[in-house]
Amino acid sequence: MSYKRTIYLEDKPRMQALEECLAQFSPERAVEIISVPDAAGRVTSEPVYAGRSMPHYHASAMDGVAVRAADTSEAHEHRPVHLEEGTDFEYVDTGNLIPPGYDAVIMIEDINEVGDGIVEIIAPATPWQRIRPIGEDITYGEMLLPQGHVIRPVDAGALLAAGITEVEVVKKPFVHIIPSGNEIVQASEPLKAGKLIEFNGTIFSGLVAEWGGEGKIMPIAPDKPEAIRESLLQSADEADIVVINAGSSAGSKDFTAKVIAEIGEVFTHGIATRPGKPVVIGKINGTIVVGVPGYPVSAFLVMDWFVKPLVSSYLGTPVPERPELTVTAGRRIVSNMGSEDFIRVNIGYVNGKYVAIPLTRSASVTMSLVKADGLVVIPPGHLGVEQGEEVTAQLFRDPRELEEAVLFSGSHDLCIDILSSLMKESSSLSQVTASHTGSMAGLMSIKRDEAHIAGIHLLDPDTGVYNISYVERFLKGKEVVLLPFLKRQQGWIVPKGNPLNINKVSDLAGSDAVFVNRQRGAGTRVLFDHLLKKAEIDTAGIQGYEREMFTHLAVAAEVNMEQRNVGMGIYSAAKAFDLDFVPVAEESYDLVMTREFFESAKGRKIREILQSEQFRMQVEGLGGYRVTAEQEPVFL
Amino acid sequence: MSYKRTIYLEDKPRMQALEECLAQFSPERAVEIISVPDAAGRVTSEPVYAGRSMPHYHASAMDGVAVRAADTSEAHEHRPVHLEEGTDFEYVDTGNLIPPGYDAVIMIEDINEVGDGIVEIIAPATPWQRIRPIGEDITYGEMLLPQGHVIRPVDAGALLAAGITEVEVVKKPFVHIIPSGNEIVQASEPLKAGKLIEFNGTIFSGLVAEWGGEGKIMPIAPDKPEAIRESLLQSADEADIVVINAGSSAGSKDFTAKVIAEIGEVFTHGIATRPGKPVVIGKINGTIVVGVPGYPVSAFLVMDWFVKPLVSSYLGTPVPERPELTVTAGRRIVSNMGSEDFIRVNIGYVNGKYVAIPLTRSASVTMSLVKADGLVVIPPGHLGVEQGEEVTAQLFRDPRELEEAVLFSGSHDLCIDILSSLMKESSSLSQVTASHTGSMAGLMSIKRDEAHIAGIHLLDPDTGVYNISYVERFLKGKEVVLLPFLKRQQGWIVPKGNPLNINKVSDLAGSDAVFVNRQRGAGTRVLFDHLLKKAEIDTAGIQGYEREMFTHLAVAAEVNMEQRNVGMGIYSAAKAFDLDFVPVAEESYDLVMTREFFESAKGRKIREILQSEQFRMQVEGLGGYRVTAEQEPVFL
Repeated sequence: MSYKRTIYLEDKPRMQALEECLAQFSPERAVEIISVPDAAGRVTSEPVYAGRSMPHYHASAMDGVAVRAADTSEAHEHRPVHLEEGTDFEYVDTGNLIPPGYDAVIMIEDINEVGDGIVEIIAPATPWQRIRPIGEDITYGEMLLPQGHVIRPVDAGALLAAGITEVEVVKKPFVHIIPSGNEIVQASEPLKAGKLIEFNGTIFSGLVAEWGGEGKIMPIAPDKPEAIRESLLQSADEADIVVINAGSSAGSKDFTAKVIAEIGEVFTHGIATRPGKPVVIGKINGTIVVGVPGYPVSAFLVMDWFVKPLVSSYLGTPVPERPELTVTAGRRIVSNMGSEDFIRVNIGYVNGKYVAIPLTRSASVTMSLVKADGLVVIPPGHLGVEQGEEVTAQLFRDPRELEEAVLFSGSHDLCIDILSSLMKESSSLSQVTASHTGSMAGLMSIKRDEAHIAGIHLLDPDTGVYNISYVERFLKGKEVVLLPFLKRQQGWIVPKGNPLNINKVSDLAGSDAVFVNRQRGAGTRVLFDHLLKKAEIDTAGIQGYEREMFTHLAVAAEVNMEQRNVGMGIYSAAKAFDLDFVPVAEESYDLVMTREFFESAKGRKIREILQSEQFRMQVEGLGGYRVTAEQEPVFL
Repeated sequence: MSYKRTIYLEDKPRMQALEECLAQFSPERAVEIISVPDAAGRVTSEPVYAGRSMPHYHASAMDGVAVRAADTSEAHEHRPVHLEEGTDFEYVDTGNLIPPGYDAVIMIEDINEVGDGIVEIIAPATPWQRIRPIGEDITYGEMLLPQGHVIRPVDAGALLAAGITEVEVVKKPFVHIIPSGNEIVQASEPLKAGKLIEFNGTIFSGLVAEWGGEGKIMPIAPDKPEAIRESLLQSADEADIVVINAGSSAGSKDFTAKVIAEIGEVFTHGIATRPGKPVVIGKINGTIVVGVPGYPVSAFLVMDWFVKPLVSSYLGTPVPERPELTVTAGRRIVSNMGSEDFIRVNIGYVNGKYVAIPLTRSASVTMSLVKADGLVVIPPGHLGVEQGEEVTAQLFRDPRELEEAVLFSGSHDLCIDILSSLMKESSSLSQVTASHTGSMAGLMSIKRDEAHIAGIHLLDPDTGVYNISYVERFLKGKEVVLLPFLKRQQGWIVPKGNPLNINKVSDLAGSDAVFVNRQRGAGTRVLFDHLLKKAEIDTAGIQGYEREMFTHLAVAAEVNMEQRNVGMGIYSAAKAFDLDFVPVAEESYDLVMTREFFESAKGRKIREILQSEQFRMQVEGLGGYRVTAEQEPVFL
């Protein structure tokens, strides 16, 4: 059994790989004729010319009377002219045909009906006044739309008006998406340990549709060269572009590059980006094949870099781009010289500027894409971005939402989701963007103007009082407000029935229990360390002490895995996993914000929601909470 | 028969009308449960929580071997540790379950296979290294998406990954669209004089779909109160929002407001905008009804102002906005104090700034919406915008296209469409934005930096030479280039068989012929006036002299209408309408541009296309042309 790698990945510049890929892309571009009302979003394959003029007759532009201008030339306020219906004039409504022989229209407001069929006018009409001449809007034979035009609703209307009911458009490029891997199962199948749901295909086909193509998710190909070969050959035959997901790296079970090289040609294997490096680009029987890495973030980016331009190239339309915004790096972002780095960021408007906070750089975290507000790209040859430096972000969200977003940093609590949800209910543009960084990191974010509000629960072991002493110490010199928020139960999160009978910290020491710890700086960690110290227990005696989780829910998920595991956390997390909970303490979870933010419209809105009955009911419904937002804020 | 108006329209501020309308909008918002892969673009009706963690087991993050970290703590380059498969380690691939008892993974690159089932390691592993813990990406119970979130492909992927295969979304608001009017017929019916194709409905339902709703075009209601009443009652019962098109003004056949008042309530009848004033907003049996004016430009704007926010309000999403750009008014734009004016503009990047050129202000010209690059809004209380003043434009196009667009002004010629089409073929972002203003106006556009290129064919009657003397005189002091473009046939455009036997200008005088003239400043008008002068014919002797058309095709369309009509124009226009053509002169149609533009990338691109075989073949295929672009440019 050999696990040796057989090839090394290249470090080709991304743009070079793209240019080479596009240069090799010469599909037979098909067209189809479709009904105009169904044409919105489709791309014209050739210029479209008007099949009819509009109006196709001289039409009255007003409700009024059609006259001969020459008959009215003498009309004056003091010398009204009388006209007789049928011989001198005809009534016309807007859009009516101008009856033959007439050459002007007088508005209904400008005539007097003085007798049966007789009108009086007091001003001359100029020839062709109030008449929409033939072709005023559209002239037969004129070019309505150029080729390569994305048909909008208004274009579809103009086509119909010009007598065009069917239009030739570029066929949507057909993109086959082949999921591969022995560990991959369909979402509908039962999920065993070691298996992963196939969900990248749904992301890919959604993206392809967004770009104007048509994606088809093919059956999952197992990690066998012959199965992959068969899938690729079939898809290369049927599709305009083939995407194969995973197996694109250079590991022992990464067959994509080898198989493509065997039955076609590989142009690129590996690009100088982070994430997204293990890309394969090649051609089989004239069809471009893109081998996309398995991790969802890498996969998303590789689709964006290569498959999006391929789809646009097929359609003959500009490659869609995201809006951009100049942002200030809220933290230092390290990059390495050789690669182009794509950093997911949250963005908020803090103290007069847009601040970008980097999210995890792990390519396996789908939720980091869901939660990201944008991407900061660090070009190759740069060592990174310093805190406070201005950079350009490509946006995933409406800039108006970024302006309205409330940036939260600090300790994780489910109630922040409830706050966010109620914010969004009050205005569709606003919501809370939460970074679960722990209490201390939350305080630091306020200190560095990286967040609007921090959520903290930090016990002062000397006084037994929560939060205030930390704020005084770490935000010294800053005018801030400590807003009472919640009292919540902290306790032992234990498997159902509490099999190891954990009720106090000393029950852990020397027992079979494996503790699931929180990260340094988390309020729960401070509490646990305080309990250990008080009980004079050395951390070395606690199995699992070094294993740190970042949220209450993650702790509960760990406990849920294994009968020996025990964690410390809040009641609602235990309840979410149907675990048992042994209360230890009621702690104060409060919010910290600058005085300026507290007094701003956003700050007032937050306080209003926190004090609402709706918020109280939803939070207390979780169990283990008391809302304390009605208490007076402390100005520090 | 009474044509008196019965009510006058209000001048309500648009935003007030919108606020009142939204305040009255309280539909029962329905939800539906749909399959996640079909959910892209739909809006969550409630927060969505993870139904499963991902990974749902501790997974290897790498290809390698799973070990117990404690067994490796002594490993060093000089003191390798040997491990035995099955007891000390297990091989794992990326994504594999970490076998029970192991707590770290060492990458395959970092081990040496030293014997059968024996590996050697030379560095210690830290606990949990290279392991993706349970819930690293998604933790069971965490909020994945808030309510009111528009589901993107990546969100759909995350939902599947979190075990969510169906999601509750807000139903698409159902918008009934009722076309009305006796003159309106379906696109499929034969089109008689006095009848107009129903095409607004297609625009409306396309827009509604774009905004996230579902439009349904109802049968055309005739201009009868009882028919309109019946349609409105039925739609108010079935739809979430009702749109009725035309009949919204205060004319004798405008029944919308009266009928709504009769069976419901009218909040607004008339707003202070131009165009778009005759709006009706009301409510029937709890359903909002919007009466939209008939002219397509007014109709489009009223949909945008009122129906778009209604759809967004139903969905609970932000109202979509167009991107904006600061532009310089290329011409003076006059407004009146009382109304908010919406000016369609073309926009081009000329001499370092974005210049906006107003298009027609007629609300009946659909093509002005098709061709517009954006809208400039002049607020009420402003008398307009001076030439050179900066204003904000809402964009209909990708700003990248505006930067690349070549602004053409001047005489109309079909070859400009061919140039545009070939430009777009060479790059999907570039095309020619053409204003058919006539030769003289084209020269003035170059003088005032409002256009990149002008197309002119101006005969100097004194010398018989085209164009040069005009450029010298009117662009004095400006460094410009006259680029030879075409020789084209000008001649009499006459009905088939030339029934009035028009062969020279003197045949027109005193005959039954009605001349279809071109506007002052048009090259064809200069030629015609020159012919009249040479033949010593007074313009008073020419029937129809005062009737001016703006393009060759419009002249041909007029001639096509009436056996007595005769026009002057180019061969291709006559050919488009299958009319006869009597040649009069071969004229020089040339292009004028600044020297700077001539030397720019865009300028070079244009020259390259003009000199291409493809361009020559397409143009000469029209008949009546010789391409002269191979001749030397004249620098002036």
